[in-house]
Amino acid sequence: MNSLPVENNKISRVKIFAFLISQARIRLFPLKLYFNCYSFYNTQERHLHLKLSLLHCASLSVRMLKIPPHQVAGHKAGNGKLGPLVDESGRFYKPLQGDERGSNELKFYTSFSSDTRIPEHISKFFPTFYGTQLIEASDGSGLKPHLVLQDLSIGRVNPSIVDIKMGSRTWAPEASEEYIQKCLKKDRETSSLPLGFRLSGIQIYGNKESGYWKPERTSMQNLSAEKLKTILKKFVSSNTSRDMNLQPDCAFAATVYGGSTGILSQLLELKAWFEDQTMYHFYSCSILMSFEKELALEGKNPGGQIKLIDFAHVIEGKGVIDHNFLGGLCSLIKFISEILTALIEHITEVVPSVNGVN
Amino acid sequence: MNSLPVENNKISRVKIFAFLISQARIRLFPLKLYFNCYSFYNTQERHLHLKLSLLHCASLSVRMLKIPPHQVAGHKAGNGKLGPLVDESGRFYKPLQGDERGSNELKFYTSFSSDTRIPEHISKFFPTFYGTQLIEASDGSGLKPHLVLQDLSIGRVNPSIVDIKMGSRTWAPEASEEYIQKCLKKDRETSSLPLGFRLSGIQIYGNKESGYWKPERTSMQNLSAEKLKTILKKFVSSNTSRDMNLQPDCAFAATVYGGSTGILSQLLELKAWFEDQTMYHFYSCSILMSFEKELALEGKNPGGQIKLIDFAHVIEGKGVIDHNFLGGLCSLIKFISEILTALIEHITEVVPSVNGVN
Repeated sequence: MNSLPVENNKISRVKIFAFLISQARIRLFPLKLYFNCYSFYNTQERHLHLKLSLLHCASLSVRMLKIPPHQVAGHKAGNGKLGPLVDESGRFYKPLQGDERGSNELKFYTSFSSDTRIPEHISKFFPTFYGTQLIEASDGSGLKPHLVLQDLSIGRVNPSIVDIKMGSRTWAPEASEEYIQKCLKKDRETSSLPLGFRLSGIQIYGNKESGYWKPERTSMQNLSAEKLKTILKKFVSSNTSRDMNLQPDCAFAATVYGGSTGILSQLLELKAWFEDQTMYHFYSCSILMSFEKELALEGKNPGGQIKLIDFAHVIEGKGVIDHNFLGGLCSLIKFISEILTALIEHITEVVPSVNGVN
Repeated sequence: MNSLPVENNKISRVKIFAFLISQARIRLFPLKLYFNCYSFYNTQERHLHLKLSLLHCASLSVRMLKIPPHQVAGHKAGNGKLGPLVDESGRFYKPLQGDERGSNELKFYTSFSSDTRIPEHISKFFPTFYGTQLIEASDGSGLKPHLVLQDLSIGRVNPSIVDIKMGSRTWAPEASEEYIQKCLKKDRETSSLPLGFRLSGIQIYGNKESGYWKPERTSMQNLSAEKLKTILKKFVSSNTSRDMNLQPDCAFAATVYGGSTGILSQLLELKAWFEDQTMYHFYSCSILMSFEKELALEGKNPGGQIKLIDFAHVIEGKGVIDHNFLGGLCSLIKFISEILTALIEHITEVVPSVNGVN
């Protein structure tokens, strides 16, 4: 390893920066914060700390970064575009948007991840936050700051995933007029206004032969209540991606949506928190619902889970609950409850005739 | 009583109308509906029915109509203006607005009052609907159709009342562009957007000497979370209307908001229904909370109650819950819960010191 640039018992910040750039593909970020903290160390400690950091950088640099295979919404990397990347250790690198959105999302993750008021049964619904790093951007524009988050698809083989943008209103009252008008137009043109949420993207695994059913994103954004319910049924049905036009059989509704650890239970847990918490308002945030269909086919627990993502428009709650997110959440819960209720009714109807009672 | 105009065994509709006009101050309405139903009767039955109806009209005509003494929001009668009237029997006559709003509110009351899917523990939160009648309008413009409803202040002597317009959005997606823009502007300028509701009017009874505290309506529409909570505390405090600027003591919070029949319990009952019902969306509808302070002062049950009013903008739910109303309702519930929780904490703090434990 090259020697560190030291001048008059002080480490030149510019030279350290150049040194870091030269040594590793993935660098620690934000440097500003890094150097602010750095002023607490004496010279010897600085050397040790920098050496450790550079070792960390070096270890990161050998990791392979790739485009997330299961991203269903948002900006995607590839074809020279800027988008998130993942490594093999289960980390998700999300480019920090250059404007207010980036700083706002970083502010949220920093605040939320250290907020002792968030109970564990709620923080589990959020991706783990590992800080920020400078990494080569996917669009080839060089080193760019990225949020380092938990890769939510790690361990999944063929996950079925749906991204649901929550709330009938995706804009905060304090947003700029231009942004409000843009969002309002979209909220009115999509199902956000009538349903309290809209689907931002979906992929449903069929089977090994047929692979995924991935409808055009825009076709999913303006669903009627009836069509939305059909999609939520398809999501937990045994249909292959080739026969998605057939009546969904809801074969996995009970194991994915139902049960004490199923998606409905998780949504209800989240709802109870939203009825109470007045710390954050989650505008334009999504709930990601996923499960592993192949496990369901094998009669195993398909690992239905919900996670919240996209916090670029989170604002302080200022003593008021997030009634906008909560309203949408209650609407989503109602749809899923209805699917399960219909299933129970269907089973109740079928069982007596099977037993020859009818 | 004059004889009825009968021609060729048929009763002339025009003459009957003129006859009705000449006989009674309050007339049955709508006549169109009346005559439609009327075609089912034979001649003898028609005579009997008309005689009974006219007796009914005559009995109504002797009733004194007056301006409701406890109306805190909406159009008010008096000074040549069109507004609701009440009689001594406990009926509230609301002028049917001439435009779509009137027909929509009538449609809602007609549908809701005969809707067998509405459980009794929910229909009790709505004013009883007695049909419609033509009565002399309060602005002196002659006979006008009125909705005949239960007078919610009947039996109250000095009620404290607050009118809360629910939902962060007071407009339905299907409304006209002009109406949407008008409402959106108001929702953004008031507390509707941040809190999920706004106060449309309030009167708080102080005592016999000081009477009511009735702040300017507009001053109550754009309250911050903190100020709104203070108002909800003042509402259940023993302060007289002269010392409303003092710290509210929440003397009646436990008996008005708390308890198994208190306002919080009622709001929670309503919430459970809103989490489930997909029949109606209640845009721009209000929750009226009221109680009788003098009863509270005497240590009696102050009769805290909630009622829903104003249904001119109700639309069909089309299989989706009313997430907009529900969100605002959850927000209101949170405010009232916090007041009660603080009260319990205060009592828990005080009691040990009274007992000398601290």
